[in-house]
Amino acid sequence: MYTLTDNTGLYTDYYELTMAQGYFFSGKAHQQASFDYYYRTNPFKGGFMVFAGLEEFLHLVKNFKYDKEDLEYLASTGLRKEFLDYLKDFRFRGTIYSVNEGEIVFPNEPLIRVDGNLIEAQLIETLLLNYINFQSLIATKAFRIKMETGDRMFADFGLRRAQGLGGIQASRAAIIGGASSTSNVYAGLKYNIPVSGTQAHSWIQGFDDELDAFRTYARINPDTTVLLVDTYNTLKSGIPHAITVAKELEERGHRLIGVRLDSGDLAYLSKRARKMLDDAGLQYVKIIASNQLNEHVVKSLNDQKAPIDGFGIGTEMVTAKPEAALDGVYKLVSIAGSPRMKISENIEKVTLPGTKTLTRYYDKEGLFFRDAIHLAGENHIQTIYHPHESGKFTKVSDLHGENLHSKVFENGTILASSKTLTEIHQYLQSRAALLPEEVKRFTNPHIYKVGISEELLNLRNSIRNELRSKL
Amino acid sequence: MYTLTDNTGLYTDYYELTMAQGYFFSGKAHQQASFDYYYRTNPFKGGFMVFAGLEEFLHLVKNFKYDKEDLEYLASTGLRKEFLDYLKDFRFRGTIYSVNEGEIVFPNEPLIRVDGNLIEAQLIETLLLNYINFQSLIATKAFRIKMETGDRMFADFGLRRAQGLGGIQASRAAIIGGASSTSNVYAGLKYNIPVSGTQAHSWIQGFDDELDAFRTYARINPDTTVLLVDTYNTLKSGIPHAITVAKELEERGHRLIGVRLDSGDLAYLSKRARKMLDDAGLQYVKIIASNQLNEHVVKSLNDQKAPIDGFGIGTEMVTAKPEAALDGVYKLVSIAGSPRMKISENIEKVTLPGTKTLTRYYDKEGLFFRDAIHLAGENHIQTIYHPHESGKFTKVSDLHGENLHSKVFENGTILASSKTLTEIHQYLQSRAALLPEEVKRFTNPHIYKVGISEELLNLRNSIRNELRSKL
Repeated sequence: MYTLTDNTGLYTDYYELTMAQGYFFSGKAHQQASFDYYYRTNPFKGGFMVFAGLEEFLHLVKNFKYDKEDLEYLASTGLRKEFLDYLKDFRFRGTIYSVNEGEIVFPNEPLIRVDGNLIEAQLIETLLLNYINFQSLIATKAFRIKMETGDRMFADFGLRRAQGLGGIQASRAAIIGGASSTSNVYAGLKYNIPVSGTQAHSWIQGFDDELDAFRTYARINPDTTVLLVDTYNTLKSGIPHAITVAKELEERGHRLIGVRLDSGDLAYLSKRARKMLDDAGLQYVKIIASNQLNEHVVKSLNDQKAPIDGFGIGTEMVTAKPEAALDGVYKLVSIAGSPRMKISENIEKVTLPGTKTLTRYYDKEGLFFRDAIHLAGENHIQTIYHPHESGKFTKVSDLHGENLHSKVFENGTILASSKTLTEIHQYLQSRAALLPEEVKRFTNPHIYKVGISEELLNLRNSIRNELRSKL
Repeated sequence: MYTLTDNTGLYTDYYELTMAQGYFFSGKAHQQASFDYYYRTNPFKGGFMVFAGLEEFLHLVKNFKYDKEDLEYLASTGLRKEFLDYLKDFRFRGTIYSVNEGEIVFPNEPLIRVDGNLIEAQLIETLLLNYINFQSLIATKAFRIKMETGDRMFADFGLRRAQGLGGIQASRAAIIGGASSTSNVYAGLKYNIPVSGTQAHSWIQGFDDELDAFRTYARINPDTTVLLVDTYNTLKSGIPHAITVAKELEERGHRLIGVRLDSGDLAYLSKRARKMLDDAGLQYVKIIASNQLNEHVVKSLNDQKAPIDGFGIGTEMVTAKPEAALDGVYKLVSIAGSPRMKISENIEKVTLPGTKTLTRYYDKEGLFFRDAIHLAGENHIQTIYHPHESGKFTKVSDLHGENLHSKVFENGTILASSKTLTEIHQYLQSRAALLPEEVKRFTNPHIYKVGISEELLNLRNSIRNELRSKL
């Protein structure tokens, strides 16, 4: 089974290594640093993100190392012997704090904080970004679809147009977001995900006529058949033939599971197909839809009351069209106890300095009300402030607050308990139930408020002023 | 090193296996079939596509098999013992024809044809689509960027926001398209690609001031330093400090390689930075630009005559924003010697029946003029026809024509000679040199004409009419 257990230390951008070598030779290797992982913009013009990829990331951090082949290769790129000798025994020995996998999160929040020496905290940057950015993006997309499919099943059909091997991880994230099964057999074994799928157009075309193709499949799979009905003509040929086969199955004591619509106007065809099936006494035969679906198409089908019982969703979900990428970043916020920040012409790109954590406050009904970014040592926060308009603030001292960071890695050991993908999805559902409806809206969602503590605000302003005064 | 050599047979959609089981039990397993791989729409609103991913795909076809763990897993999904016993010894023994990796290709052309028994030709579908769709998409994106960067280097910086492990394959495809190097160290080793990268903002912030950060890096890397100049303020701080360090390097007999601009208006900043460097006598210091670049941004920088010597290009290239996926499909076109086609309400989705191949015709200047899709046995084609408007045709009998298909796999053996990525890129460049300029245009490119032979036209029409008459 594929796991990235060899050459793990090479799964990185080269500049992480040139910087690590620089820290090594400049005597900074043992300075303690903190880095924050956060993203800047909610994907899909939505109001939130689903955080995913944590468990796989932590397994790779645990196994992040350089073997002989790696070091020989790195020597060939020009890195130096003394530094490569140091890498021989390299292991990440820092500490990682994180929100839970499946958490509902918002822009600029420190979702993961890595505390470690400069080299170890730097070297895992690319790994973290690559694993967390992508799975969070896909889990968010899948959950948006799940919000529209509701209790109906939807299967991940995406592998064929996924971004190469990324399709494996996309299937994992899709299940976290709410997919019921996957067509990806590899992911099925690797992640213990139910696999699903019946037949393609090639099956139908492999026979001299459609009825023969349907009959043959149903004979071999009398209890698990879903018939693809659009190869020739959905309503004139596919559905009538499916009805014939369903009746033949009934005579033998079996039931046709469903029909799949894969082209044409799915709202129109599903209504017509439903009526034809019902008129034939086949109320139990389900209608499954596929073909370039996404959350907006499913919503439109819902709005039109299309009688669809399940969905196969591929390309748009596993590649997160049209975003394709999440803008997550990993920024140095503290070194040797000294808070650091990046200033910028662009106010949105100014980072928040210092070793920080994240607290969520709940309203009287128990719903998410505000999140607060604050320094790690702070307790009993009274008031939180808008990061850029300090005239906007909210008193939180009377509210129930919950720190969202857990220590998930320490001393080379993963502390986060291993969860099944179903458990992570259930956690996501329990959290989404506490998210105000208006934040979940697809169109112009309400912006959930994330504030910063007064102490962090003052620290940020004083460092910013100091940096600007030097220019 | 990661290669998908274990569980290869599971890298598939589940329905390939349920169909294969159906062929097995219905006695169709040994019927000979042909499948065509083609795509429908040029990505990025462009006029062509770069075909890529072939060599990796063929290696996986060669190693496509089911071991004990795979078969136990498949048994747990409900597939039956007799079929799984058949899979024990499964190897792909069919024949594969393909255009060359790096070829310039167009919609609806049969780029790969798989001839084999129904089971083997069916089982490799997902693998083919997953590998070829993605690498072709990225190679095309990278080549579009290369058309604008010209002789200047550009580095792949994409791993951190790539779609998970797809980032590995994206780096391969980026080099085929024209990237000069990659930040992705893993891909560097796996594919023998030059790696590049120097420092991030965290390096600069790790020191008490920017000049100290620059000096330290340059001291450790006196001949390979590119300084990131935008951490505090590009023109007020970054460039002046870079000039100081460049002069210090000169005193010690070294040269600063370059500066990197990573935010702000790159056209403005590059012009100002160039002037400041030149005024300091540092004409040799290169200006590298990064930050959300794509072919359109590079074109705009060229139009503004921005003095940029090299580029770092990440997210937009390796995720192929905004397309994110290529619409390539794999369709049954012949079974047991009988041509097959799929009809559809949508004229564009009607498939071309029969075992086919592809010929390119050149004009008198030696440029690409027309491509012809025709039946495999046809020679000396006189005239080619528009697929849907038979009143439109072109005489090709006087033109030089070249069959684009080679036999690349037979009897379990890869016949295509292994090429380096540089060789594939050079092949692409040699082919692109023959592509009329108007087809390369970004805005409303000229549509390159792909016709079908008269024999294929007649076959298509007769099967279509026969199928429609049954409805």
